[in-house]
Amino acid sequence: MSVTAAQGFTAAGIAAGIKENGNPDLALVVNTGPRLAAAGVFTSNRVKAAPVLWSEQVVKGGLVSAVVLNSGGANACTGPQGFQDTHATAEKVAGTLDLNAGEVAVASTGLIGVTLPMAKLLPGVEKAAGELSAHGGEKAAIAIKTTDSVHKTAVVTQDGWTVGGMAKGAGMLAPGLATMLVVLTTDADLEADALDKALRAATKVTFDRVDSDGCMSTNDTVLLMASGASQVTPEHAEFAEAVRTVCDDLARQLIGDAEGASKDIRIEIINAASEDDAVEVGRSIARNNLLKCALHGEDPNWGRVLSAIGTTKAAFEPDRLNVAINGVWVCKNGSVGEDRDLVDMRYREIKITADLAAGTAEPVVIWANDLTADYVHENSAYAS
Amino acid sequence: MSVTAAQGFTAAGIAAGIKENGNPDLALVVNTGPRLAAAGVFTSNRVKAAPVLWSEQVVKGGLVSAVVLNSGGANACTGPQGFQDTHATAEKVAGTLDLNAGEVAVASTGLIGVTLPMAKLLPGVEKAAGELSAHGGEKAAIAIKTTDSVHKTAVVTQDGWTVGGMAKGAGMLAPGLATMLVVLTTDADLEADALDKALRAATKVTFDRVDSDGCMSTNDTVLLMASGASQVTPEHAEFAEAVRTVCDDLARQLIGDAEGASKDIRIEIINAASEDDAVEVGRSIARNNLLKCALHGEDPNWGRVLSAIGTTKAAFEPDRLNVAINGVWVCKNGSVGEDRDLVDMRYREIKITADLAAGTAEPVVIWANDLTADYVHENSAYAS
Repeated sequence: MSVTAAQGFTAAGIAAGIKENGNPDLALVVNTGPRLAAAGVFTSNRVKAAPVLWSEQVVKGGLVSAVVLNSGGANACTGPQGFQDTHATAEKVAGTLDLNAGEVAVASTGLIGVTLPMAKLLPGVEKAAGELSAHGGEKAAIAIKTTDSVHKTAVVTQDGWTVGGMAKGAGMLAPGLATMLVVLTTDADLEADALDKALRAATKVTFDRVDSDGCMSTNDTVLLMASGASQVTPEHAEFAEAVRTVCDDLARQLIGDAEGASKDIRIEIINAASEDDAVEVGRSIARNNLLKCALHGEDPNWGRVLSAIGTTKAAFEPDRLNVAINGVWVCKNGSVGEDRDLVDMRYREIKITADLAAGTAEPVVIWANDLTADYVHENSAYAS
Repeated sequence: MSVTAAQGFTAAGIAAGIKENGNPDLALVVNTGPRLAAAGVFTSNRVKAAPVLWSEQVVKGGLVSAVVLNSGGANACTGPQGFQDTHATAEKVAGTLDLNAGEVAVASTGLIGVTLPMAKLLPGVEKAAGELSAHGGEKAAIAIKTTDSVHKTAVVTQDGWTVGGMAKGAGMLAPGLATMLVVLTTDADLEADALDKALRAATKVTFDRVDSDGCMSTNDTVLLMASGASQVTPEHAEFAEAVRTVCDDLARQLIGDAEGASKDIRIEIINAASEDDAVEVGRSIARNNLLKCALHGEDPNWGRVLSAIGTTKAAFEPDRLNVAINGVWVCKNGSVGEDRDLVDMRYREIKITADLAAGTAEPVVIWANDLTADYVHENSAYAS
């Protein structure tokens, strides 16, 4: 269902020949209206890919009529030529579909530092345009995969309107988004400002709290497009909740399919003095390689949790910290707690609860993965 | 020669039975004077092991007559009992050697969250005291090993005085020191203030710029003890340079023996706007798991260097960045540079040069390791 679950959108996914193995590598999503409102969130990496620089400008106008996405090449660190290639791609979409190029967003994913094969990409745009369909969402989701083992989609429908979406991303997943391309669509009748508000609130507590491997991408893009085709204008809170639910679902799918991972780690920080403190501590735990190795080995090594907490600036007293792994409070008051042999770590999901005993902030959840030999293998050979 | 290269020191290393495999696990270093001056630098982790809390107080007095070190247990996150155990260890050394316990430093390394077997450790102190010798430095260096494959020592001698030292550390190596115990000795005749100044200047540019795996320990300790036995008082600059040389040598040995590593990565940041900027960028590159995997695979993946730089707050323009790997400028002006196939990565040492083109700060060097399947294996099974 993906991006065509909502009314007013067509999509396509095709093989343009960008990937040498012949797999699908080009997706097109078109808003058929009547409204063309949009919002976007992009990587906070200061080294931004050409399509990010382009699409940031497109989205500023609050109006996106189509987005073209390619896998097989990130078009990042490609200099002026890279930006010209992105521009040419948007112009090609515009020319083919009779749109304004300034309303066509572009997103790319793949290797950094390699220019795109435009002689294959541009004909691919024509081919994709020829296959646009109100049932094309699934194919679009498949065409944006890189090392993803499965394509990722999610849909929420209620009271006559729908929010749907697709995502890709399996490595370079870290706060400030991930190597992650996400397109969300809705047929709710809302203006760009409302979309922007709902999207930022949702990404802050979903994609921004996913930290698979601590590596922030140059290409992260999350777009939300509204067609207004349902002719329903939902309450803001209701709409924001639907967007958050779809983002949460997709973010969880990204963690579940992260490169080489064997464990999904849910890190919950409770009783922090502030939300910022909780997020800082959660990320520090999420990024601790020694802990990630231990969890891979199903070793409830809470000492590595404490050593990670100790590197932060968050408010806490070391001798008041408590840590539970899968519900067993193995660390109490900064010291040895319940018997670590009670911790059952056989399942893919591992829950770490860190109690900072420092305040009354709402709990914060950060998702991470373990560190495995497969991760090393996949990422030491990716370019070759 | 290690810690007994300088006159005025005795040392011993023995097996006390703390390690279940019977390997040496207890070291003692005694300053026989005439001077008993000392300085120390400790982990900046806020979760500090009991021996760190104790030794910080001891060193504050500027006077250390002996240091006792054990491997086989970090005595970190062990609560009030852990602190009592450290105190009892210092008292035992003091009682055995007729010293003041307040002048006995303690250092521990091994697993976090496990109390030390005092019934074995305390008799071990007596045994070590019985074996103290002016030739015991080598044995002391061996007794502090954990997962180290070799023991590490270094010595500089000049103009009648000597600085020598020993170090251990193979994992949890990161800025703000490492899971690293270092004892330096000198027979130069200097007061505690001079030692402190030289030691802080040296650690800042050596141990603090080693980042094997981004994980900061709870136990890091670097002690410098002066006996005055040479009756020579060197110029400060000359002495500071000797301390820096010994620290640099030991730090390089730590990186060369890091857990599971197959590459030593020398990251040099040039033309930064400030030293702080250069250090921030260097650490960001050093900690990028995707890059560390690529380097393990001998893949000159400069895009991952740029994406790491992009996450920092350092002054730079993305389109002015240049990156060389082993002397080949594979990235020029933020884009594709020389042919990446020219990069020869067969050897253990890999040099990355990042030119920020943002200022005239002195070059900064950060040392790191690659990320390997062996690192994962060693650290997922360490506790078992």
